[in-house]
Amino acid sequence: MSFKQKLFEVIQPGREDQTLSRRFDYFIYGLIVLNVLAVVIESYSWPEEWFRQFLRGFEFFSVLVFSLEYGMRLWTSDLLFPKKSRTLALFSFVFSAYGLIDLLAILPFYLPFFIQIDLRFVRMLRLLRLLRILKLKRYSRSLKLVSEVFSEVKADLAVTVFITFLLLIFAASIMYNVEGDAQPENFSNIGQAFWWAVATLTTVGYGDIYPITPLGKLLSGLIALLGIGVVALPTGIISSRFIEKIQTRDQHKNTRKTEDEICFCPHCGKKLKESQK
Amino acid sequence: MSFKQKLFEVIQPGREDQTLSRRFDYFIYGLIVLNVLAVVIESYSWPEEWFRQFLRGFEFFSVLVFSLEYGMRLWTSDLLFPKKSRTLALFSFVFSAYGLIDLLAILPFYLPFFIQIDLRFVRMLRLLRLLRILKLKRYSRSLKLVSEVFSEVKADLAVTVFITFLLLIFAASIMYNVEGDAQPENFSNIGQAFWWAVATLTTVGYGDIYPITPLGKLLSGLIALLGIGVVALPTGIISSRFIEKIQTRDQHKNTRKTEDEICFCPHCGKKLKESQK
Amino acid sequence: MSFKQKLFEVIQPGREDQTLSRRFDYFIYGLIVLNVLAVVIESYSWPEEWFRQFLRGFEFFSVLVFSLEYGMRLWTSDLLFPKKSRTLALFSFVFSAYGLIDLLAILPFYLPFFIQIDLRFVRMLRLLRLLRILKLKRYSRSLKLVSEVFSEVKADLAVTVFITFLLLIFAASIMYNVEGDAQPENFSNIGQAFWWAVATLTTVGYGDIYPITPLGKLLSGLIALLGIGVVALPTGIISSRFIEKIQTRDQHKNTRKTEDEICFCPHCGKKLKESQK
Amino acid sequence: MSFKQKLFEVIQPGREDQTLSRRFDYFIYGLIVLNVLAVVIESYSWPEEWFRQFLRGFEFFSVLVFSLEYGMRLWTSDLLFPKKSRTLALFSFVFSAYGLIDLLAILPFYLPFFIQIDLRFVRMLRLLRLLRILKLKRYSRSLKLVSEVFSEVKADLAVTVFITFLLLIFAASIMYNVEGDAQPENFSNIGQAFWWAVATLTTVGYGDIYPITPLGKLLSGLIALLGIGVVALPTGIISSRFIEKIQTRDQHKNTRKTEDEICFCPHCGKKLKESQK
Repeated sequence: MSFKQKLFEVIQPGREDQTLSRRFDYFIYGLIVLNVLAVVIESYSWPEEWFRQFLRGFEFFSVLVFSLEYGMRLWTSDLLFPKKSRTLALFSFVFSAYGLIDLLAILPFYLPFFIQIDLRFVRMLRLLRLLRILKLKRYSRSLKLVSEVFSEVKADLAVTVFITFLLLIFAASIMYNVEGDAQPENFSNIGQAFWWAVATLTTVGYGDIYPITPLGKLLSGLIALLGIGVVALPTGIISSRFIEKIQTRDQHKNTRKTEDEICFCPHCGKKLKESQK
Repeated sequence: MSFKQKLFEVIQPGREDQTLSRRFDYFIYGLIVLNVLAVVIESYSWPEEWFRQFLRGFEFFSVLVFSLEYGMRLWTSDLLFPKKSRTLALFSFVFSAYGLIDLLAILPFYLPFFIQIDLRFVRMLRLLRLLRILKLKRYSRSLKLVSEVFSEVKADLAVTVFITFLLLIFAASIMYNVEGDAQPENFSNIGQAFWWAVATLTTVGYGDIYPITPLGKLLSGLIALLGIGVVALPTGIISSRFIEKIQTRDQHKNTRKTEDEICFCPHCGKKLKESQK
Repeated sequence: MSFKQKLFEVIQPGREDQTLSRRFDYFIYGLIVLNVLAVVIESYSWPEEWFRQFLRGFEFFSVLVFSLEYGMRLWTSDLLFPKKSRTLALFSFVFSAYGLIDLLAILPFYLPFFIQIDLRFVRMLRLLRLLRILKLKRYSRSLKLVSEVFSEVKADLAVTVFITFLLLIFAASIMYNVEGDAQPENFSNIGQAFWWAVATLTTVGYGDIYPITPLGKLLSGLIALLGIGVVALPTGIISSRFIEKIQTRDQHKNTRKTEDEICFCPHCGKKLKESQK
Repeated sequence: MSFKQKLFEVIQPGREDQTLSRRFDYFIYGLIVLNVLAVVIESYSWPEEWFRQFLRGFEFFSVLVFSLEYGMRLWTSDLLFPKKSRTLALFSFVFSAYGLIDLLAILPFYLPFFIQIDLRFVRMLRLLRLLRILKLKRYSRSLKLVSEVFSEVKADLAVTVFITFLLLIFAASIMYNVEGDAQPENFSNIGQAFWWAVATLTTVGYGDIYPITPLGKLLSGLIALLGIGVVALPTGIISSRFIEKIQTRDQHKNTRKTEDEICFCPHCGKKLKESQK
């Protein structure tokens, strides 16, 4: 096995069986978590100047590691797509979901050298690199189940979202007319009324905006009760698909089992012919 | 194909396979969305006079288009109901759900010419015309599933709503007696207590009205916990029907499949006779 | 049919097929709803003295009707329990759920004549009489389904409630220690902290009491997230039973159908003997 | 039966059939509940000195009883693990879940004699001893069902929690950037923004912190709507497993039943041979 081949094995995520590959994964994940922690800490006012400098140094070091890792992934991309040509494999990696996330994790650091923009916030996107964890065998099946369910209920959920949106905009425009005169500062336009409608239908209810007229309270109560249905509908849709998925899986198991229970002839003990499928 | 026939094909919604019909749909949907946007923008205070004039002009144009479209639908209504007579088809369209929605979208504009009322709010009802989108093939099956489930659980949900309402009015009258003395401005009558009960049971909890006495807090906590059951019950009802629907559909598939697996005679290999159903 | 028999038929609730019985039901239901409305109206301050007098008169009239009805039910109780003796039937009715509710609806009116207590609030209990509506055929099946599901999940729900209660009291005592020093007026004792815990776990969140220390916010966030599980668990339990119930019902249908699909002998066409069950 | 054997039978929890054992359980449970109540009461300011002294005396008595009980359990531990040696049985009990909980219930009382710490709060942990109630037959099956479901959905829930956490930290860092300038006191750092994100996604919405800028409200609305999905997903996962569990149990019953319905030979009436499984 060449050095390139070995390197490729090490930097591939989710190879739990190889000690070095696992350690490399842990190192990268640790670096990502610490980086996110650094962004969180920087947002506070208590860190003194020397600590801020240290955090900046740490970020510099992280980007260096991430850049190096990105380079290695670029180099070994032809091993990831063995059937594709060198150039095509490179492109395939760069524009794959993980490839783009990796680029996003280092690009914001280099950009300010060329153009003058504040991309501090984008550093948070490094968090996306943690999604690699889901490549671990024990999670990949769960992720597959969840994503399969979501892709199957897409159309059903779209209808739900569409009806919910119509409900929200209606509620907002009605309440704007009903409450607008009583509290012109809170329901001054449909946009604010929409904000109230979302807070009510999702049952968040911050309390910064709520109806004060009897009619407004009546309508608000109705919308809040409808909110229960809005929660129940997607829950029902998602649940039913989960159950279908799990039962189909179980049925496959059962089918395989019954294959051993074919009928036998009572006289000679031979297997009875089955239909030719 | 006559011109009328062609026109009918174009203005029918949900014909994705015909370029012209699809474009016509997009044009109408775009007009509806822009109209709703115009109502939202008008509710704000920032638009200057010239922009308000432009919005009024745009509404005038939209109503013109919608009126023309309504006229065309009236004219081609006999093609929509080919088995009915000319007059009956006209009536069938005008009093169909979509026909009424279409009328509602233009009528508010013409009414003020005859009677003196402010129907600005009703313009929001134009949004309902967007429901036509659900006629698209990819959504119509979802909509059918959702509406079938709802029509089947109607009685079950009615019982739930009835029990919920009893719970609300009891909670309201108890809390009116318990909290009425401690905070006469918030729990001054059962109506206000009912408003509190709805906000608590649906877990919205705006914070404009809440118990302050120990007994009131105890009862409020109980009602909030019961609120979980109130959410769980309709969710369970709706979920169970979704699952039933999906499994019945799957069972039909399975039944068809097993038809190929009929038993064969072990001696001659002929198909065994099935019962005469 | 004797007069007593006829009267019994009329006052029995849920006899939709008999015009008189249906009208009697509607009359009683109407009276109950108007009575509850009267209690609600009396709680407001706007009704003038003459209207309050009218409401008192109306209540007097209602109690009279209800008393008369109760008497008739007592008289015909032997027809409700035809197999029991006269006295036993009377007792059976008086101590049945509906009998007690009926008594509760009139008793509070007569009690003040004997003892000096304010039982105005108990008038709300008349609302319970509306539960008779659930005797209607179209709702009784739903009610049976809902109550069967609840009686089956009793033990499962009890475990959930028990764990939820432990969670609440733990959360309360921890938060009392964590937040007690920072806001002594809000978290002054475990009782208040428990109130906060209920408001958080049920996601009501009135906003009258919330953590302000970082540690308190961290714990509060955890409890709120656990609250999702607290909602998911009973929903899952209730849903699964609903589904089981509906599927068992469907299976019975299927079993009956397959009885027509018994195997037939390929030679003589006679039915093959089935096992002697 | 020796005295030790008899004692062991009595102190074993969940033996409902034995009067003495049941009474012992009730006594211990009562003591635990009263102890927790004492901690709650002590947190209030109204109890006078003599009552506080009484509560302290009661706690002293309880710990004495619990210590005695713990000693008895230690002594009879070899009967709990009859196949293990004396010493191993002792260790098995001490480090079992219930053994540790029992120790935790008395240790905090003795510790202050050796080291100087305030362990008053830990007294709340005595509540954990109530978990023994779940050993009762009627609850143990429910508990087993619930815990089995949870252990099976662990991986699925982990993926959900992971995605939820990513969503929270992203929402927090975005809102910190969006709202930070408008309300520097509320969104002063990512930690506070995270607190807001949790309160919004779980739909608690205390109202102590909420967006005021239009962009912030838009994002907040989106996150609140996503919160519905966050509730629906675990509910769907948990529901589907509950249903699977219950159906598998039912299927076992059905399988047993069909064993009586084996085919019989149409000619001689003998049972047809089944496949040798």
